[in-house]
Amino acid sequence: MPGNSFGEAFRITTAGESHGPGNLVIIDGCPPGLHLSPGDVAAELARRRPGRSPLASTRAEEDAPEILSGVFEGRTTGTSLAILVRNTDARSEDYDALKASYRPGHADFTYDAKYGIRDPRGGGRASARETVARVAAGAVAKKLILAAFGGEVLGWVTQIGTLQASVDPQSVSARAIEELPDGSPNHVRCPDLEASRAMAQAIEDARREGDSLGGVAAFVARNVPAGLGEPVFDKLKADLAKALFSIPAVIGVEYGSGFEGAKLRGSQHNDAFVAGPTVTTATNRHGGMLGGISSGMPILLRAAVKPVSSLPRPQSSVSATGEPVTVITTGRHDPCVLPRFVPIGEAMVALVLADHWLRWCGQRSAFG
Amino acid sequence: MPGNSFGEAFRITTAGESHGPGNLVIIDGCPPGLHLSPGDVAAELARRRPGRSPLASTRAEEDAPEILSGVFEGRTTGTSLAILVRNTDARSEDYDALKASYRPGHADFTYDAKYGIRDPRGGGRASARETVARVAAGAVAKKLILAAFGGEVLGWVTQIGTLQASVDPQSVSARAIEELPDGSPNHVRCPDLEASRAMAQAIEDARREGDSLGGVAAFVARNVPAGLGEPVFDKLKADLAKALFSIPAVIGVEYGSGFEGAKLRGSQHNDAFVAGPTVTTATNRHGGMLGGISSGMPILLRAAVKPVSSLPRPQSSVSATGEPVTVITTGRHDPCVLPRFVPIGEAMVALVLADHWLRWCGQRSAFG
Amino acid sequence: MPGNSFGEAFRITTAGESHGPGNLVIIDGCPPGLHLSPGDVAAELARRRPGRSPLASTRAEEDAPEILSGVFEGRTTGTSLAILVRNTDARSEDYDALKASYRPGHADFTYDAKYGIRDPRGGGRASARETVARVAAGAVAKKLILAAFGGEVLGWVTQIGTLQASVDPQSVSARAIEELPDGSPNHVRCPDLEASRAMAQAIEDARREGDSLGGVAAFVARNVPAGLGEPVFDKLKADLAKALFSIPAVIGVEYGSGFEGAKLRGSQHNDAFVAGPTVTTATNRHGGMLGGISSGMPILLRAAVKPVSSLPRPQSSVSATGEPVTVITTGRHDPCVLPRFVPIGEAMVALVLADHWLRWCGQRSAFG
Amino acid sequence: MPGNSFGEAFRITTAGESHGPGNLVIIDGCPPGLHLSPGDVAAELARRRPGRSPLASTRAEEDAPEILSGVFEGRTTGTSLAILVRNTDARSEDYDALKASYRPGHADFTYDAKYGIRDPRGGGRASARETVARVAAGAVAKKLILAAFGGEVLGWVTQIGTLQASVDPQSVSARAIEELPDGSPNHVRCPDLEASRAMAQAIEDARREGDSLGGVAAFVARNVPAGLGEPVFDKLKADLAKALFSIPAVIGVEYGSGFEGAKLRGSQHNDAFVAGPTVTTATNRHGGMLGGISSGMPILLRAAVKPVSSLPRPQSSVSATGEPVTVITTGRHDPCVLPRFVPIGEAMVALVLADHWLRWCGQRSAFG
Repeated sequence: MPGNSFGEAFRITTAGESHGPGNLVIIDGCPPGLHLSPGDVAAELARRRPGRSPLASTRAEEDAPEILSGVFEGRTTGTSLAILVRNTDARSEDYDALKASYRPGHADFTYDAKYGIRDPRGGGRASARETVARVAAGAVAKKLILAAFGGEVLGWVTQIGTLQASVDPQSVSARAIEELPDGSPNHVRCPDLEASRAMAQAIEDARREGDSLGGVAAFVARNVPAGLGEPVFDKLKADLAKALFSIPAVIGVEYGSGFEGAKLRGSQHNDAFVAGPTVTTATNRHGGMLGGISSGMPILLRAAVKPVSSLPRPQSSVSATGEPVTVITTGRHDPCVLPRFVPIGEAMVALVLADHWLRWCGQRSAFG
Repeated sequence: MPGNSFGEAFRITTAGESHGPGNLVIIDGCPPGLHLSPGDVAAELARRRPGRSPLASTRAEEDAPEILSGVFEGRTTGTSLAILVRNTDARSEDYDALKASYRPGHADFTYDAKYGIRDPRGGGRASARETVARVAAGAVAKKLILAAFGGEVLGWVTQIGTLQASVDPQSVSARAIEELPDGSPNHVRCPDLEASRAMAQAIEDARREGDSLGGVAAFVARNVPAGLGEPVFDKLKADLAKALFSIPAVIGVEYGSGFEGAKLRGSQHNDAFVAGPTVTTATNRHGGMLGGISSGMPILLRAAVKPVSSLPRPQSSVSATGEPVTVITTGRHDPCVLPRFVPIGEAMVALVLADHWLRWCGQRSAFG
Repeated sequence: MPGNSFGEAFRITTAGESHGPGNLVIIDGCPPGLHLSPGDVAAELARRRPGRSPLASTRAEEDAPEILSGVFEGRTTGTSLAILVRNTDARSEDYDALKASYRPGHADFTYDAKYGIRDPRGGGRASARETVARVAAGAVAKKLILAAFGGEVLGWVTQIGTLQASVDPQSVSARAIEELPDGSPNHVRCPDLEASRAMAQAIEDARREGDSLGGVAAFVARNVPAGLGEPVFDKLKADLAKALFSIPAVIGVEYGSGFEGAKLRGSQHNDAFVAGPTVTTATNRHGGMLGGISSGMPILLRAAVKPVSSLPRPQSSVSATGEPVTVITTGRHDPCVLPRFVPIGEAMVALVLADHWLRWCGQRSAFG
Repeated sequence: MPGNSFGEAFRITTAGESHGPGNLVIIDGCPPGLHLSPGDVAAELARRRPGRSPLASTRAEEDAPEILSGVFEGRTTGTSLAILVRNTDARSEDYDALKASYRPGHADFTYDAKYGIRDPRGGGRASARETVARVAAGAVAKKLILAAFGGEVLGWVTQIGTLQASVDPQSVSARAIEELPDGSPNHVRCPDLEASRAMAQAIEDARREGDSLGGVAAFVARNVPAGLGEPVFDKLKADLAKALFSIPAVIGVEYGSGFEGAKLRGSQHNDAFVAGPTVTTATNRHGGMLGGISSGMPILLRAAVKPVSSLPRPQSSVSATGEPVTVITTGRHDPCVLPRFVPIGEAMVALVLADHWLRWCGQRSAFG
């Protein structure tokens, strides 16, 4: 009943706090024979790393992964695979003043209510620092689904505050998300360049004004075979939603037509099946899942992320002893987490696909 | 790795198809001593039953639950509790013509892709008929959370097509959802009476036009103590989202401020903590969950439901052998499932709360 | 955390009491396409049925299984498969006098200590009657492992009281266990005919004397491919042991050389590997499992079963209110459960093999 | 479906190989507020450490645990708790000659059959080195059960080869197991001093003769409250058996009267209940468990351990390419693992008790 594991067949268990010795993940169920190096993991960690963008936190973490088990001579062995990422730039003093108070929008109060004790250093386990372990595991999941069925997961920022981008999920490329046309980093990770510029400006404005922004990230998973997802509770849509909702700050998830689709009539919404070498649909309002099972069409998801709760301005709150107080968050925080949310969300989507792939493999090869 | 179980401490496992002998649930983990009668279960089943509203399917099911185990002299014994609901009005002939074709928006194709075999009678396991087992289990969960902490879960229809209602989740009552002021049934289950009338008209229009409608249902869980939810993956928000997404036709879930909240700035979005006998917040944009743990404030959720896929009109599709075909769905279907979705969604929310309550009880009483 | 499910990939969940409406099992994870009829299940149920042997309880149950879901036109569909076996000859009055007392050797006291409430009718959930659901599920597992890899599980009685049989696990046949040379039933299920006769006499003696006997059952699983078992905790030996220990009255389990093997030296105990079309071992003291993974050699297990606790003679005990009392068990009980234990143990072994086969299938076909 | 996790409410997940960077465990579900220091863990690790006894392997590991998460200011926080133990004296060259061959009695062949790849260094994941993670976790479990209900788990060696000790499980003390009367270490961990001396001699004889010995360890758990264990599959006896069988080299487990008890009649075997402040039994042939639930009497277990398979003498075997070969194991191995098995077995028993305690706490406090 504890909650630090995710997945059934490709199962991850994580541990670690913001300002403790490090964050780690044990992956249990990675099939044998997958090529894997620390560099594969480091590349994904670099994408979520703080201190790399003018739009993000200045915390400077090396995020160098150590593979502690499960790999021999560059290939996975099928036994449990552990990856440790040490914390190196944890400055606990930033948080000392807040030890005794509950920051609005944060988990300080609820952790106290639940556990009666908490690690206040940088938010402890509730810090988004824990997602480093997710991204490390996601790097392995991405390699697995690519090797197994050519699967690819891409995410991008599609909304910051009220600014919306227009991106075609069928054709968008990793390069367009990560780089500007001149080869410099696309710090916003929005491939709609006009929107990206406006979003970057909005984030800088928010930072300057001591405020923060939320937004929406979109994800596409391509080349996913039809058949993934386990009715009736572990539908692919249900596990993908849980995966995204388990990330800090996510407050909404939709797939395919989503909330807008709920306004349509059935005659407008149904996607017609089309005959061909494989069965496809003429449109993809169903977002690649029917009955909670992948249809072979691209899987389309969107996740709403709330504005960052840490604000360098006075906010009304309550102390741990129940007295009214005013708090100011003075640590190093992102004014908007959406750009760094992208690789985290990709990791969670990839983990679900790896897990459901392996779950399905057992069933369909039982008599093979 | 199969997917017909849900929950960890209050764990349900379901079975049954639309046109098979019946649907059943085994509840494992219900604590001993809870008063429970078949009537308790029947009352909830009646709320989702077809054939009771002019707006819904005319399939006439008795939905009489039989408790097969786990109850002795009117109280639960702590052992596994099984409930069986026989199907009595299954007319397989309605579906014979569709056996060989894939209905747009349905799971016919994906079930074939996954399993290579499917029960075509009424959609088999993919039919919303399976939710009868969820509602039966939810009836027990509702009794448990009420007895344990006074917990109450209410749902209502807040949007049909583009028609939106205005309802205060803090004060809405079960009676206002279920009944009109004159005591007659509120068939739409929307407590905003003006909206309800317009919605009823819209549903009737859609039926007359051989079309269907989607919408949005809202849920509130009240009196939930602070402390429920298991970081980092089994956050309360994550398990609630999975619970709702596991229901057929759900295509979006949000809590608290949701997608609209992603447009706000942090200074607009944070809820200030307020001192008092218990810590509360001045506003509830956080929807009763912080860091994925309940805060003690009302839990607020919304689920988007796609328009019904079964349409009594010709649609382009593909046969099971890959040929282009035209299909017309001729069974007895709801033109809009939102009113009957309400008790199903309530059941899933209650199941999550019962489960997380028991999960938490183990931790907090370990040294007690 | 409740305990009424077993297995991961081929997962069963059971419910039911001795004198309630019936016992049932939901099998989740049975692959699609397996031929299955109620008769397949009934045949195994008949083997454990009371009232069929002069050596067993006279309770006369029909044990007619009803398949409630998961089978369409004679084949499994891959969705959850439910089987219900109604109780028909439950005579609660037999137990009325014992309601208020704790029978020695029974679970009356511990159920009260755990739950604070119990169904006293026939032992409720603690009755061996619950194993009817295990045997029903085991019938499906047996069909699966036979279809998947020609797997076969056989059990027999190898010891009753101090009487020991001599049986070759490599060559023993189902017929030799079930029938005497003249075609009449081998009520003891011991294929060593001389021992069988003595055992039958011993059981009749015990019954006449108002006493009971324990013993040991042996099991062999043949044609199991090398590779089943999940290090480090879900070793095949560990899950087989748990499976057998979960059966009422089992108080010891060993595999291969077992407790006698612990007396040997390594040079006497190691089985030499032998080259050939497949790798085998010259001897099989390792009982078909090395490192907790099947080796391809026959899997050999033994389970010790305590003498039946229900005795038609006065025994010292305590009432539910803590007073000293004398109890006499007057229901219909077996003087020795070993013969009927055989099909129950086989079912549990088959369930473990089916589960581990499916678990392995997922891993080894991940890149296939 | 992978197998590197154990427990439900107090859940451990381990990783690590014999000659990799280290072994680690993540404990998920440890309740908040438990006092815990690295020294608590180190003390238990020291008991299983090689290189400390003339009877054991000369591999010299420091076994210094690092707590990576889950503890703040000396107390557990309720979040996942990770412990890493680095390997420091791994000499892979010892095993190079055996890379291509299958050692009799070892898992080399079955790992290859299962995974198609293996880490040959020191047996990789199949090495008993992995038990360091179990003992680390067991140290936490021991502290938990002591704090929660005064629970205590003790193990000792009761048989080496054919030499049997006589020990009273009710009165045996930790000191009598660990120390001789003169305060020097009891290297055999057998509190029957006469037997201990003979066992030590037998182990030295076996070593000198290039051979090895097996044996039996006994365990008692005292002060365990009545009520632990989850019918019908997760019976306490079933989970304890699985826990012990999951340890390398265990080939038999029994509790209470065990295999000898199967020879008794019911009238000899039943333990009479005795009235008193709490209900007890006059004898304890039931080994503290009835119906798979703890009775409040001491829990008594025995585990048979096969003789060490690694022998410094020629043995017939097969190469990885299927050719007949002769292998000699030249690494540093124990001639008898029983003394070092004791703390490992204790750890597994403590883990099961901690887990079942927490599982029960959730149920019994649900309405509290």
